[in-house]
Amino acid sequence: MADVFHLINHVQNAYARCIDNGNLEAWPEFFEENCTYKITTADNHALGLEAGVIFANSKGMLRDRVASLREANIYERHVYRHFLGQPWILSEEANEVRSETSFFVARIMRDGTTDVYATGRYIDVYGLNGSNAPRLRERIVVCDSSRFDTLLALPL
Amino acid sequence: MADVFHLINHVQNAYARCIDNGNLEAWPEFFEENCTYKITTADNHALGLEAGVIFANSKGMLRDRVASLREANIYERHVYRHFLGQPWILSEEANEVRSETSFFVARIMRDGTTDVYATGRYIDVYGLNGSNAPRLRERIVVCDSSRFDTLLALPL
Amino acid sequence: MADVFHLINHVQNAYARCIDNGNLEAWPEFFEENCTYKITTADNHALGLEAGVIFANSKGMLRDRVASLREANIYERHVYRHFLGQPWILSEEANEVRSETSFFVARIMRDGTTDVYATGRYIDVYGLNGSNAPRLRERIVVCDSSRFDTLLALPL
Repeated sequence: MADVFHLINHVQNAYARCIDNGNLEAWPEFFEENCTYKITTADNHALGLEAGVIFANSKGMLRDRVASLREANIYERHVYRHFLGQPWILSEEANEVRSETSFFVARIMRDGTTDVYATGRYIDVYGLNGSNAPRLRERIVVCDSSRFDTLLALPL
Repeated sequence: MADVFHLINHVQNAYARCIDNGNLEAWPEFFEENCTYKITTADNHALGLEAGVIFANSKGMLRDRVASLREANIYERHVYRHFLGQPWILSEEANEVRSETSFFVARIMRDGTTDVYATGRYIDVYGLNGSNAPRLRERIVVCDSSRFDTLLALPL
Repeated sequence: MADVFHLINHVQNAYARCIDNGNLEAWPEFFEENCTYKITTADNHALGLEAGVIFANSKGMLRDRVASLREANIYERHVYRHFLGQPWILSEEANEVRSETSFFVARIMRDGTTDVYATGRYIDVYGLNGSNAPRLRERIVVCDSSRFDTLLALPL
């Protein structure tokens, strides 16, 4: 288990670093070609509601999302800073690891204001592909709060 | 030391996960039958004052606390999200490990408001019992702030 | 890589613990005699501007800074609580390790108010010196926000 733990821990760190450094074009590369990426709320997740605030089911859709973010940055600029708890390994198979990880994201607005933007947990399925670079087959981002800022834009 | 570090790290992660997932009934199981659980402030702790905001000295008292929380949830619902630093191993004996760990707890109110609820450090004594499941013999929760919200309710 | 990762992880934990415990006199000991310590903003860092909000290039200057903090504590007392992401190892040589680490610092004022004080990343060069106690040859503290509180005082 220790090896898988460190492997997942490492890739999660890379994921957070990618977004926080503003390297959005590299973000879709953390996913498999056929993947699920969803942002939802704890309430909706508990009720089993399928719809998410944001939904994508292919790497192409993630790329489109980045492209539209780049075009649309007319709104107030802001950056994120992710902090992740340690991954909790739920199951480990030959080709797949399931894990849950708490996250906390601080948002820093252009004027310098910093606030707690979102907290929650990632519910992840990682494909292992026999390599040291696990890719996300599925990431459900379950936000603790049901209040979403209209600025929701950068990936969580 | 590495093994003990990972063992403590793992159980701390499980503890935070237990509370954040709302599984309060399982929370007392992280403690030994005869245990000390205390929430205090940094000021009182530095002065050597014994009294805490919350105090329990048996697993039974912790169970009672959970029961009363379940009955009393007439007040505004809220959830916590814990973030822990890495445990700092103070000492390691055959049956006992002492450690300190920083914590940060975000609170998410029913209306979606998220704030920094508490920061501080756990001062822990873990009983090892020759197993891979260390249990808390003592946890002193030293909160940095002396201002406590009257909603103080869920375990830290 | 794993060994260096754990070594750096450990010393970063010790660094945060030193400041959060108020043991400022020990803080310069995390640095080499000839060192660079700089606090700057993400904007200035991206522009390549050399000037920092705070700058020191010797352990002596860090000691002076601590001494003046001790003398000057007429202003409102406050404490910090650091939370660090995992170090990202950029390069590893025989005598030197370069890494980047996200940080989040909560500030607790005397009246109990807690806020997000600063977020950002440490860009570090650690000297290894063949020991298990790596020392900072260089630490650039890049704060995400360009708004600095006039209380900026304790080390980041």
